Amino acid sequence: MKYPNNIQKNFKKEINYKNRGMNLEGLINEACKYYLEHDLAIIYKKPTPIGVVDVDYKKGAIIKKAYFKEPSTLDYNGIYKGKYVEFDAKECQSKTSFPLNNIYEHQLNHIKKIIRHGGIAFLIISMNQGYYLFKGEDLIIFLKTHTRKSIPYQVILEKGYPLKINYNIGIDYLKGIDEAYKGVDCNNEK
Amino acid sequence: MKYPNNIQKNFKKEINYKNRGMNLEGLINEACKYYLEHDLAIIYKKPTPIGVVDVDYKKGAIIKKAYFKEPSTLDYNGIYKGKYVEFDAKECQSKTSFPLNNIYEHQLNHIKKIIRHGGIAFLIISMNQGYYLFKGEDLIIFLKTHTRKSIPYQVILEKGYPLKINYNIGIDYLKGIDEAYKGVDCNNEK
Repeated sequence: MKYPNNIQKNFKKEINYKNRGMNLEGLINEACKYYLEHDLAIIYKKPTPIGVVDVDYKKGAIIKKAYFKEPSTLDYNGIYKGKYVEFDAKECQSKTSFPLNNIYEHQLNHIKKIIRHGGIAFLIISMNQGYYLFKGEDLIIFLKTHTRKSIPYQVILEKGYPLKINYNIGIDYLKGIDEAYKGVDCNNEK
Repeated sequence: MKYPNNIQKNFKKEINYKNRGMNLEGLINEACKYYLEHDLAIIYKKPTPIGVVDVDYKKGAIIKKAYFKEPSTLDYNGIYKGKYVEFDAKECQSKTSFPLNNIYEHQLNHIKKIIRHGGIAFLIISMNQGYYLFKGEDLIIFLKTHTRKSIPYQVILEKGYPLKINYNIGIDYLKGIDEAYKGVDCNNEK
């Protein structure tokens, strides 16, 4: 159908998840919600740590003054197939490499601790319109063997486990965990 | 030594943890900190969920308006001996029974889910100057077999695992977990 002024409208629009303007965190939150509803995993985003200074109790409890605190852990954690899971979402703007200043020292220490204690810790990296689960172990190995301040895209492709966007789920990261951690299900009942 | 006006001062004061005015949460936070420092467990209190409405960015980022949100999960979670651990602190004022309206419906559902997924979920109850780890499983069983709206102190004593206060640690709840969950260490490396 032709509109005036040569404007053509395409009525058959494809629903593209990315065009919805949902960023990485939004996609992960959708997935967490889906997994909860379908009893597949119990994973939540940790609330942003906030230091409350002043509360007005006149009408309920309205916080009048507070400040953002730096989190000690990664953003998401919970349980999947009997394992402790913790991860962070990292959006990478560069097309060529993932900057390591993206990851704070205490977050790296935290990842090491989680792994040492038998848990699963990783990053979900969005880069060049793709999504990758990057294992904490691979991050630690990379840092031990390199002095450079970023991870080349090539390494993300090699070591990372690609994650797909699913219309219902958002970003299906559990599939990535299954791939990346084959053989570590310690939950005898499931 | 006698002071004027018959006031006697006792210079040999015993340091009693309870007299420090530390409540249950304070004692648990001390323990979490100790366990982190000694690499025994990685357990943190979840930040209070807060909905931020207005932020003043003129001098850094000061939150000018926010409200408290209801948490979806229990207050503490993390990893111990390869297991996912989650628990809540409950102070009980009554000497005779632990009121069940203390526990919200969604918290109970959450406890059930965690257990179903192979994690450890419990309450730490302080009552009659004692501290008890009360397993999620025992809570669920009690609710299934009783219509009453509180758990009698006798049941807390029978089913609960007593926790000791330690001068260095605070409340040594890991010992309670060891007792309560004998034989569930799924961490092959440790």
